[in-house]
Amino acid sequence: MAFSGLYMALKKSRTAWALTRILHTNKSPWGVAFLSSSCPRMSVGPMEPPFTADHYSVSRLPFPDVTSEDLNFFQRLLPGRVVTDEDDLKRYNIDWLRTVRGNSKLLLRPQNTEEVSKILKYCNDRNLAVSPQGGNTGLVGGSVPVFDEIILSTALMDQVTSFDQVSGTLVCQSGCILESLNQYLEGQGYIMPLDLGAKGSCHIGGNLATNAGGLRVLRYGSLRGTVLGLEAVLPDGSILNCLNSLRKDNTGYDLKQLFIGSEGTLGVITAVSILCPRKPKSVNLALLGCESFSRVLQVFTLCRDHLGEILSAYEFQDLESMRVVQTHLKLSNPLQESAFYILIETAGSCEQHDEEKLNAFLAKALESGLVESGTVATDQGKIKSLWALRERITEALAHDGYVYKYDLSIPVEKLYALVEETRARLGTSARRVVGYGHLGDGNLHLNITSETYSESLLAALEPFVYQWTAGHSGSISAEHGLGFKKRDHIYYSKSSEAVQLMQRLKKMLDPKGIMNPYKTIPQAD
Amino acid sequence: MAFSGLYMALKKSRTAWALTRILHTNKSPWGVAFLSSSCPRMSVGPMEPPFTADHYSVSRLPFPDVTSEDLNFFQRLLPGRVVTDEDDLKRYNIDWLRTVRGNSKLLLRPQNTEEVSKILKYCNDRNLAVSPQGGNTGLVGGSVPVFDEIILSTALMDQVTSFDQVSGTLVCQSGCILESLNQYLEGQGYIMPLDLGAKGSCHIGGNLATNAGGLRVLRYGSLRGTVLGLEAVLPDGSILNCLNSLRKDNTGYDLKQLFIGSEGTLGVITAVSILCPRKPKSVNLALLGCESFSRVLQVFTLCRDHLGEILSAYEFQDLESMRVVQTHLKLSNPLQESAFYILIETAGSCEQHDEEKLNAFLAKALESGLVESGTVATDQGKIKSLWALRERITEALAHDGYVYKYDLSIPVEKLYALVEETRARLGTSARRVVGYGHLGDGNLHLNITSETYSESLLAALEPFVYQWTAGHSGSISAEHGLGFKKRDHIYYSKSSEAVQLMQRLKKMLDPKGIMNPYKTIPQAD
Repeated sequence: MAFSGLYMALKKSRTAWALTRILHTNKSPWGVAFLSSSCPRMSVGPMEPPFTADHYSVSRLPFPDVTSEDLNFFQRLLPGRVVTDEDDLKRYNIDWLRTVRGNSKLLLRPQNTEEVSKILKYCNDRNLAVSPQGGNTGLVGGSVPVFDEIILSTALMDQVTSFDQVSGTLVCQSGCILESLNQYLEGQGYIMPLDLGAKGSCHIGGNLATNAGGLRVLRYGSLRGTVLGLEAVLPDGSILNCLNSLRKDNTGYDLKQLFIGSEGTLGVITAVSILCPRKPKSVNLALLGCESFSRVLQVFTLCRDHLGEILSAYEFQDLESMRVVQTHLKLSNPLQESAFYILIETAGSCEQHDEEKLNAFLAKALESGLVESGTVATDQGKIKSLWALRERITEALAHDGYVYKYDLSIPVEKLYALVEETRARLGTSARRVVGYGHLGDGNLHLNITSETYSESLLAALEPFVYQWTAGHSGSISAEHGLGFKKRDHIYYSKSSEAVQLMQRLKKMLDPKGIMNPYKTIPQAD
Repeated sequence: MAFSGLYMALKKSRTAWALTRILHTNKSPWGVAFLSSSCPRMSVGPMEPPFTADHYSVSRLPFPDVTSEDLNFFQRLLPGRVVTDEDDLKRYNIDWLRTVRGNSKLLLRPQNTEEVSKILKYCNDRNLAVSPQGGNTGLVGGSVPVFDEIILSTALMDQVTSFDQVSGTLVCQSGCILESLNQYLEGQGYIMPLDLGAKGSCHIGGNLATNAGGLRVLRYGSLRGTVLGLEAVLPDGSILNCLNSLRKDNTGYDLKQLFIGSEGTLGVITAVSILCPRKPKSVNLALLGCESFSRVLQVFTLCRDHLGEILSAYEFQDLESMRVVQTHLKLSNPLQESAFYILIETAGSCEQHDEEKLNAFLAKALESGLVESGTVATDQGKIKSLWALRERITEALAHDGYVYKYDLSIPVEKLYALVEETRARLGTSARRVVGYGHLGDGNLHLNITSETYSESLLAALEPFVYQWTAGHSGSISAEHGLGFKKRDHIYYSKSSEAVQLMQRLKKMLDPKGIMNPYKTIPQAD
């Protein structure tokens, strides 16, 4: 039994913790991989997806076309930072999953808030639609235009404004890349309070706009708690400065919350103030194999009991999702085959205490027979290799064929039942049905692949998946948002009264509806 | 040196940790004390404050008076739960601090959401103003009527709906008392994610409505992160159900955030879903004495380094605030006199590890000479006694005379400079100038007492305190909210653009302005 041997080694020496079979992997966050030419599926070429306008049932709203006069205005405002070349525009028109494709003729690259303000004021006056874009790593078609909306990219707004060593408060422009920010902070003994697979490409502004979740929610909570302030440009070009850096501020309504998670439909986030936790002095990662999902849940309870405040992630993946990273990315699974795998991360301030807690937990997990194999990593390189098995599933799935993606919140006890029911329901019509996700947050990523897009497969999946989720009081989008692709499914998770109130908010802030149209909130009647 | 001896004892045995000099105190959260007859200042009698309408410069808006027809409607709707007796109404018309006094003739006590809905629909149709009230423990005059608004009390809405042992999610009505909820949860191995001095009286709905902070923010974050869902009745009587219990849900705008911290001006919160942390297995509390505020800050840095994830509170109080609890509540300070005192709480999952971390920290604090005395408590009774020294300052101040209260967020390095400047500025015209608060959150409570209310003292304090705070990019209300008394000071912390947007939100949700008028958001021009 692989784990048993390991556990004995653990008791003897710290260095023995790290399993030698952990593989070397390419450091390649999926956002980066997407844009690199080394990844053939990702290059824009013969495999270009069809235009959204042709493929989806959606009608263009009566926004005027961009004129040469408009173009002249933007070229004067942003000299050398206006893109109109069709080929250059492709990567901004097509989403990472290659499932939606806009037809924008114009990309604007402002460098600061004032430029964003002037752009939006002009667009609002002219009634031109705008699609804001960060790292374009979204999974629901929210970050690319649906028709010919002007793309407003935050890529050149990538400056750190300040970092306060005492309080851990970072203030930066919204186009900073998450991983770059994390690296910057690590040099100063801090980390970002969020982490996700797309960190190499995604922008912090996009993270806020989508209320990104990811791997650290269990420990540091959501962005609604860690974001201290933001600056946003409203659709009419006015600048709303809520960029404070205070942990507590109860002076009036908390306007920043409107923009967190509104997916660019209420304005453009231009700057962010965020509270960053200290970099943990000690990090351990355990990969465990379990024979059933009920044991995954039992291990979660055991783990919370033993690890308490040092537990920083509890992720799970099923065998099928392990196979997909082995097959397409050639990553190696250091454990024997199990029906389920669990990744448990601890992050604490005392190496010795953390080890003792983890050892006690592993001993108990072993003795009780809840896990059937396991490995532990403590050094940075090996931790990254183990994390890759979980973090790169999204990337691996993109190599497997057309991907139907569902990102669901479901009470944990019921979480895997949906995967099993979906698998049984689809039979051989799907290539793969995989389930993985942030178990500690009750967040399941259900993914189905097929060789090519299939209407009949989609019909077997929807509304089944949404109805099943709503039937279990779940959310049909836990962390990905609604974007373009899931907008009309909002009623599975929200009452019509709630949606009407959202529509009133949208109307109030964006009366002309120019900001990221066709997305997130269904059009009011 | 008191601490030195203690530290040696700590090294020898765990039981020696708790100092025998810690006193027995009455268990009396200040909210409870206020309402009890044992506390003469608190009884409604000759010391009644003047009516707000007479004492403050504020004009009644043209809401109609309550008619006998209105009364009949409410008596049919809420049989036996309509209060009109003037004496019975007094405690609901006067705030805890006895600084504001409304003149409501009618108190309604609904038991459920449907009743609240019917009340608000009727009031909105009739254009009758409503003042929602929880435990009436607010400190800014937000929880009592200004004129004759109808008081809607949540006191009878005190039922727990459900508690999920796996996820730690509590769902309850908004009138549940915070301390009762905490006791209920402790029996099941969990605690509430917030704790504050008024816990014995305040309602969870009021906590949400005011985005209450308190003693656990440092560890568990703000309510914006821990509240999973809520139900609110809008001013027109419609019920908005956002009562989900999911840790993650990104389906549209996060409407619940509108109601958190809006102080009852946008609707009435009727139910709450909140994520509760596990009850820590081990809790320690240390009270330390420091000779200067710069040392308080140095100890904070040292403490974060050593205690890391088990640090659950870092509170400070100055000598003057220690004296006030000694004088008026007869609590005993177990330490020698110091210029400053620090309360450090640890909460963790392993008694032995927590002790080791705390010991290492205390040893370092001692060796470095940063602290001059100290005591540690581990058992529940003694922990409560030490906490009382800090938690009951508000109550003690109420015995000292008229209290001018300021609740400020200020960058920690500058936090105490304001107390010193205020003290120097006021000289002998104030009875006391005290500073204490949640240092870990950058939150200072600055309180000034005088024998009676004095216009000249107020003129010396305002706008000085607000200007000073704004000059240091602080917030003029960190956690108490704006209520009636601080509403017009919002501009010290928020831009006019931000306030205008708040006014538009208010207008959208409450076009007739019936909900908690005269409060939080300045009247739109």
